Amino acid sequence: MARTQGSHSDITGPKVRDAALRLFARHGFAAVSMRQIATEVGVQAGALYNYTPDKQSLLFDLLKGHMDDLLAGWSQEAAHVDVTDPAAALEAFTRFHIRFNTQRADAVFISYMELRNLSPENFDAIGALRRDYESSLEEILRRGAQAGVFVVQEPRITAMALIAMLTGVNTWFREQGRLSRPEVETLYWNLVRHSVGT
Amino acid sequence: MARTQGSHSDITGPKVRDAALRLFARHGFAAVSMRQIATEVGVQAGALYNYTPDKQSLLFDLLKGHMDDLLAGWSQEAAHVDVTDPAAALEAFTRFHIRFNTQRADAVFISYMELRNLSPENFDAIGALRRDYESSLEEILRRGAQAGVFVVQEPRITAMALIAMLTGVNTWFREQGRLSRPEVETLYWNLVRHSVGT
Repeated sequence: MARTQGSHSDITGPKVRDAALRLFARHGFAAVSMRQIATEVGVQAGALYNYTPDKQSLLFDLLKGHMDDLLAGWSQEAAHVDVTDPAAALEAFTRFHIRFNTQRADAVFISYMELRNLSPENFDAIGALRRDYESSLEEILRRGAQAGVFVVQEPRITAMALIAMLTGVNTWFREQGRLSRPEVETLYWNLVRHSVGT
Repeated sequence: MARTQGSHSDITGPKVRDAALRLFARHGFAAVSMRQIATEVGVQAGALYNYTPDKQSLLFDLLKGHMDDLLAGWSQEAAHVDVTDPAAALEAFTRFHIRFNTQRADAVFISYMELRNLSPENFDAIGALRRDYESSLEEILRRGAQAGVFVVQEPRITAMALIAMLTGVNTWFREQGRLSRPEVETLYWNLVRHSVGT
């Protein structure tokens, strides 16, 4: 049966995911029970199973949703970038990554934290999405090196190194801090571009 | 009463820490019980309390021990570096950080993952040790910038950015992989030195 927009299910589903994300990030996946998630949402524990078959599915949905959003976000961003200009593409990637991740601190945190708690097949699925994302940066680096704009040994490892550096912003960035998000983006863009010799 | 070297306590203490480290890294602090740690060590649950008052103390000991070793290791390394040569100091720091961290993957992992499970005072103590370590890199960057060897805006943030990049090696490095540890060190040293314009 088709659901009416704004039905009970449509509202509760996102609430369940939000509550699970918040609780997993604060206490860790293993320490949080379905009962706690239900209490946080304000429904009976049994009602939770209308929205998710189990805690593992909930974790996977959160991690997969985060990676899907990241890939879709970058794909949308990349559509506006001149692909023949590697430096412009690298700058767009740098700014996008910082902007996207600093706005989703809990999702980024559990995406690193809770990988070990995914079932093997779910772990593989998230791993494949991560590799897709790393490949998009690797491709920019390869193209820049071929064009003689970048100096890059080992484009795959360099992509992982730069992503680790950019994700690190989340450990210290505060919304109301001394530096605005665009200022932080510019600071890291300077590190990134120098690191590949441009 | 003074302990004889090699006594039961001297052997079991490190075994308890090793077992706790392994179990915390695999399952997460919250999911591991003192009973499981005792089983892993091969002692009765009650006997564990001869070595540690509780699970929180065990976690703090592991995280503090890791930071103490890191700071002592760098201090030892830095003693051999010509402090008037900022590039040499930065290279030494880069190589030391990768070498030290890739040899202690579990300790590095729980040092990031389990910060949220420290009591407030333990959290502050670990935070202070981390800031000390970041300051040692910040100092190298400041000295290099003053000497006109490096181009560095925001030395503190740059130090955190570089540490995040270097620690990221742990997510992909494998002891028997295609690249040896010294090759990885050289690869990252090139990224680091270019990122600060040298």
